[in-house]
Amino acid sequence: MRQRRIGLIGSGFMGKAHTIAFRAMPAVFPGLGEPVLEMLADADEDRAREAAGRLGYRRYTDDWRSLANDPAVDIVDICSPNHLHKEMALAALEAGKHVYCEKPLALTGDDAAEMARAAEAAGVTTLVGFNYAKNPAAALVREIIDSGEIGDIVHFRGTHNEDYLANPHVPFNWRCQRELAGAGALGDVGAHIIQMARFLVGPFAELCADLRTVITERPDPGRTGAMRAVENDDEANFLVRFAGGASGVIETSRVAVGRKMGLTYEITGSRGAIAFDQERMSEVRLYTSGDARGRSGYRTLLLGPEHPDYGAFSPAPGHGLGYNDQKIVEVRELFAAIAEGRPASPDFREAWEVARIMDAVERSARQRAWVATDGR
Amino acid sequence: MRQRRIGLIGSGFMGKAHTIAFRAMPAVFPGLGEPVLEMLADADEDRAREAAGRLGYRRYTDDWRSLANDPAVDIVDICSPNHLHKEMALAALEAGKHVYCEKPLALTGDDAAEMARAAEAAGVTTLVGFNYAKNPAAALVREIIDSGEIGDIVHFRGTHNEDYLANPHVPFNWRCQRELAGAGALGDVGAHIIQMARFLVGPFAELCADLRTVITERPDPGRTGAMRAVENDDEANFLVRFAGGASGVIETSRVAVGRKMGLTYEITGSRGAIAFDQERMSEVRLYTSGDARGRSGYRTLLLGPEHPDYGAFSPAPGHGLGYNDQKIVEVRELFAAIAEGRPASPDFREAWEVARIMDAVERSARQRAWVATDGR
Amino acid sequence: MRQRRIGLIGSGFMGKAHTIAFRAMPAVFPGLGEPVLEMLADADEDRAREAAGRLGYRRYTDDWRSLANDPAVDIVDICSPNHLHKEMALAALEAGKHVYCEKPLALTGDDAAEMARAAEAAGVTTLVGFNYAKNPAAALVREIIDSGEIGDIVHFRGTHNEDYLANPHVPFNWRCQRELAGAGALGDVGAHIIQMARFLVGPFAELCADLRTVITERPDPGRTGAMRAVENDDEANFLVRFAGGASGVIETSRVAVGRKMGLTYEITGSRGAIAFDQERMSEVRLYTSGDARGRSGYRTLLLGPEHPDYGAFSPAPGHGLGYNDQKIVEVRELFAAIAEGRPASPDFREAWEVARIMDAVERSARQRAWVATDGR
Amino acid sequence: MRQRRIGLIGSGFMGKAHTIAFRAMPAVFPGLGEPVLEMLADADEDRAREAAGRLGYRRYTDDWRSLANDPAVDIVDICSPNHLHKEMALAALEAGKHVYCEKPLALTGDDAAEMARAAEAAGVTTLVGFNYAKNPAAALVREIIDSGEIGDIVHFRGTHNEDYLANPHVPFNWRCQRELAGAGALGDVGAHIIQMARFLVGPFAELCADLRTVITERPDPGRTGAMRAVENDDEANFLVRFAGGASGVIETSRVAVGRKMGLTYEITGSRGAIAFDQERMSEVRLYTSGDARGRSGYRTLLLGPEHPDYGAFSPAPGHGLGYNDQKIVEVRELFAAIAEGRPASPDFREAWEVARIMDAVERSARQRAWVATDGR
Repeated sequence: MRQRRIGLIGSGFMGKAHTIAFRAMPAVFPGLGEPVLEMLADADEDRAREAAGRLGYRRYTDDWRSLANDPAVDIVDICSPNHLHKEMALAALEAGKHVYCEKPLALTGDDAAEMARAAEAAGVTTLVGFNYAKNPAAALVREIIDSGEIGDIVHFRGTHNEDYLANPHVPFNWRCQRELAGAGALGDVGAHIIQMARFLVGPFAELCADLRTVITERPDPGRTGAMRAVENDDEANFLVRFAGGASGVIETSRVAVGRKMGLTYEITGSRGAIAFDQERMSEVRLYTSGDARGRSGYRTLLLGPEHPDYGAFSPAPGHGLGYNDQKIVEVRELFAAIAEGRPASPDFREAWEVARIMDAVERSARQRAWVATDGR
Repeated sequence: MRQRRIGLIGSGFMGKAHTIAFRAMPAVFPGLGEPVLEMLADADEDRAREAAGRLGYRRYTDDWRSLANDPAVDIVDICSPNHLHKEMALAALEAGKHVYCEKPLALTGDDAAEMARAAEAAGVTTLVGFNYAKNPAAALVREIIDSGEIGDIVHFRGTHNEDYLANPHVPFNWRCQRELAGAGALGDVGAHIIQMARFLVGPFAELCADLRTVITERPDPGRTGAMRAVENDDEANFLVRFAGGASGVIETSRVAVGRKMGLTYEITGSRGAIAFDQERMSEVRLYTSGDARGRSGYRTLLLGPEHPDYGAFSPAPGHGLGYNDQKIVEVRELFAAIAEGRPASPDFREAWEVARIMDAVERSARQRAWVATDGR
Repeated sequence: MRQRRIGLIGSGFMGKAHTIAFRAMPAVFPGLGEPVLEMLADADEDRAREAAGRLGYRRYTDDWRSLANDPAVDIVDICSPNHLHKEMALAALEAGKHVYCEKPLALTGDDAAEMARAAEAAGVTTLVGFNYAKNPAAALVREIIDSGEIGDIVHFRGTHNEDYLANPHVPFNWRCQRELAGAGALGDVGAHIIQMARFLVGPFAELCADLRTVITERPDPGRTGAMRAVENDDEANFLVRFAGGASGVIETSRVAVGRKMGLTYEITGSRGAIAFDQERMSEVRLYTSGDARGRSGYRTLLLGPEHPDYGAFSPAPGHGLGYNDQKIVEVRELFAAIAEGRPASPDFREAWEVARIMDAVERSARQRAWVATDGR
Repeated sequence: MRQRRIGLIGSGFMGKAHTIAFRAMPAVFPGLGEPVLEMLADADEDRAREAAGRLGYRRYTDDWRSLANDPAVDIVDICSPNHLHKEMALAALEAGKHVYCEKPLALTGDDAAEMARAAEAAGVTTLVGFNYAKNPAAALVREIIDSGEIGDIVHFRGTHNEDYLANPHVPFNWRCQRELAGAGALGDVGAHIIQMARFLVGPFAELCADLRTVITERPDPGRTGAMRAVENDDEANFLVRFAGGASGVIETSRVAVGRKMGLTYEITGSRGAIAFDQERMSEVRLYTSGDARGRSGYRTLLLGPEHPDYGAFSPAPGHGLGYNDQKIVEVRELFAAIAEGRPASPDFREAWEVARIMDAVERSARQRAWVATDGR
């Protein structure tokens, strides 16, 4: 079985999640190649050594550039802070590596565009870690939509709300800083629901957004007793018109008290509807208007082997998938795309499209007006 | 016990619902007066006779004006088609009657304003039947908010989605006709969620709306094989800023396949959150951030005697309230307000405020721009 | 419309619930007769006067026997303490009245038998207030079963768990006293789920029970600081074999912390299944094995006008029914049965069957052995 | 990091699940040792070769005895058909290997006893794969119980219902055959809920059971058109008294139409209650009686980093765990126990206790009487 040697940049929880997926994937989805944990980079050498040992990487370095150019590395996996993605990805592409990058791809649409163009010029495979699009539930929802079971899509309501910054005593951190994070909730969690909306409903045509920083200043960790102004949005709400004609409402927040993994959507079609909540990630609720008189109602589909990808995890229905299983499906997609020499999904181009929509959201909010998104 | 003599205009299902509430109210909420079913009016005399006999009214007439002016009628209850509300209410007010009117109060904000002013000039009690604001669950939510348990309100998401016109084969009817219905989904069901948002969060400051007629034409019942253009909205989506600072997203639809009584809301505060779905009208879901470590989560409160009004229906918790129980609470409010010589809630003035917001929604959608709502 | 004059014995919350239902029923279900609130009896004259005034009864008395024999009373409605049911019902039957009696019909199976025989000898209509069997959801479940949609019934799991005596500091009261209450949780709430099991699945053939008094003594309200031994069960658990072949498991408790209206059941058939929870009394969850591949799942049916009785309350689906609506359906059954000169359901005979099963449960628990229930 | 070399017997889905867990465990729970996929045995050599290649085992064999005695194997992992467990485990123990065996440990209590005694004599570590006890949700429930948050345990209701044999057209297979499977639903799925009851509530004292074969014969795959009698139970229902005093009701079925992963339990304590459904395996519902007036209700705890083990999978709450994650926790326990030279949990002795209870269930059902279980 063909080996693919991984160079991981970053030693945090996302690097761990990727590593779990690399290790497990070949047993879940055999035949696509064996990831070899070749090298791990972290700017701090001690941390690099510790993480490499802990996660099982053969080598480590405190110089990500040497990793990106290491001839023994086939895939550069970027799990570093967001503001470093661009430089690292461009270097890896230049070195001819396949690139697996966490979202957000970049801090601005322009940067994302540059990266997407570089990827296409390099002719390698890229994949951006949007996680939830790899939930087999999302594939099932897509299958239901594509089959026409709910008719034409009329309306989409999506949210990605969490509460990780709801507590005003949480100090100012990189997530609040424009230079390091780009947008706030919009970039951090909103990117997920935007990408999901595109995956399920298609391109956006225009939107009108309202952004808000709810907690305008936070304790400055650098100066005891001082406060520091938050530089990006705590929540974003926007109306959408999709290119296909459907209307939509999207919300995202990092101060939504009570919501832990609040990626949800409800899709209304002309002949049915679908409701989903990532906090119950192995369930899809489906309504179809063709049921017998007095027997119509939302039905709860538990993921099972009759649905996409699930059978690779368990032959029995209802046994449940978890967050890390999504990353296994994601790594499967990466390896399959590389093996087949095709673009992976979602790739840098798709991440660029998402970034363009995030730019449009910010522009619309500034202008307090509807803006076109060019409909891709 | 003081008797209050009812004159009901209209013999349809809403007249029936009011009548059930008139009959049951004194046993549920003793001491506020006894409704006497004095008279029923319907333009069709046969129908008037049948309905009066069926529902238990002493007299009937085919002339609503005679009812409005009948000295034996204390309260005129208007359950007629929407476009007749204004003329009837003005006549009843002129005759010095208390007026209980179904929503929407009128087809336009201007008409609603005229009615509200006439009501205030007449010095009688008016009440508009918004139903769901009288669910004890709504009173409980208001109590939770007012107590500060969830802190300051940060965000409101509300929907009132139903699917009664989702089937494109349903012929054109009065609901689709501007002259008879005014707005579409916005007026029919949207009015409920707007009024609920005002009740729970407070006045609106500005909004930006998107309206859409999804099924643009329907079979014309008057001309076999012909189609007739639908004249108002099938769905409305809008962003809101409340005067108190909270942001909001509101949706309403009459083509939301699968949704039968889709009045829902989720209110995020700075220290907690509340979620509600009218399809489970006896439950309120509450999250508060003060729970012990590892023990936080949405809790499901089943309505019980510790909550507002419920104990009048049952001394035991969790036994459940129904749609008609809301109307009993509504009639209780009407009778209490009359007995106390105070405005009822929601009265014509409140209905005018709702109508102003509906006007603003339509204006915003036409202009494709944010509009101010004057913040009352 | 034919009037039926009611004589109510009892002024507590159940008398109130019946009165609400008497008042509302004719508007909900027209044409079956008009209940006239003729007379109310309570052993305490002041209480009788107050309650009659509050609830709207024309006359009152402190002598239930005079009510039972009053020529102006057509229906004797017994909402008194359980241990008085027998004497009152026998007197009313002897006077030739129709009898509407709250459950439990009597404290023992023998007493219930005597009452059922007296009722049949008297040739009048009797009805016992089992409440939940009159939930339109139960009628819908019965309809689904009878139609064969879930095939043959294989298994029944039923509970009626509440927590009204879970707090050990609640003093000893009549519910804990054998002479006044008969069985404990078994009689108080267990009777409901037993009757529901019979209604939905059919006669019991044999059972094996485990009874337990969890809180064995409680503060004696008569002697400060003293405790008094509880005389009946706090919980009952039993295995059942139904005459039709299905197996079953039934639980009932009055110390089930957290459960407020815990009447639930799950019925497994050879080709489908049904799940119900009275705390969500307007929903029925249905699974049928004939769904398309990958599209099977429990569906949530919201009660609507396509289902039994619901349309009388509301023409629109999902609007919700409440506890008191069940009593309206119950009064409808009483009036319809009287009008048609037929037995009502559930009548004294059915209540006797339930009492026989409760006797069998207690016998089985004493003997720690399976016992036959004679399969009626 | 210490390596532990795995010898896997069996190439089916359970062998795959174990392998996924072996691969992923060291990244999830670092520092406990690295599983090496040393050898795979299957009676069919082709299958052994294919599976070893697919799953990543270094060597393969068609002779499980050689695997059990191979000096390069540290842990023998038994994922073979149930009736082979005993012989294989005894051989592995004799060879001084640690043994990881799927449930049921054996077909009878006597066999399980022999195996447990051999394990203790061998002084190695054994672990039996009960899966669901390793769900962090179960650890959380145990933590809640142990902390006293719900007081003393009063009642336990548990089920493990599935529908994998609900279709009567499914041919007779090994699961229906006493010699190969031992008990039916009782052994296959019931073992899980029995073990869970022991884990959460403690030893059983006595029980009374009802067993039933619902589909008494099935198509004989060996003889076209012929039927073959099913030899064990399709469902088992039993009453329990726990040694600690609590009562219980347990159900298990393999013909429970609609139930896919129906391991559920509801635990009532003297001051709170817990409800769990494995189909929503990352949620625990908790009720405590100490909430403020009017604010009590079941709260839904989403698993998060504040709960046992979850943080190793994700640092963020509500992100969800899946079936295979339970096996990773299970492998962690195996490796930790080996490293610490202590018994793992649940070990062969615990599996023997479960087997003794299953024996008691069958004995009780035959005798139609309560039987003691010796209370361990």
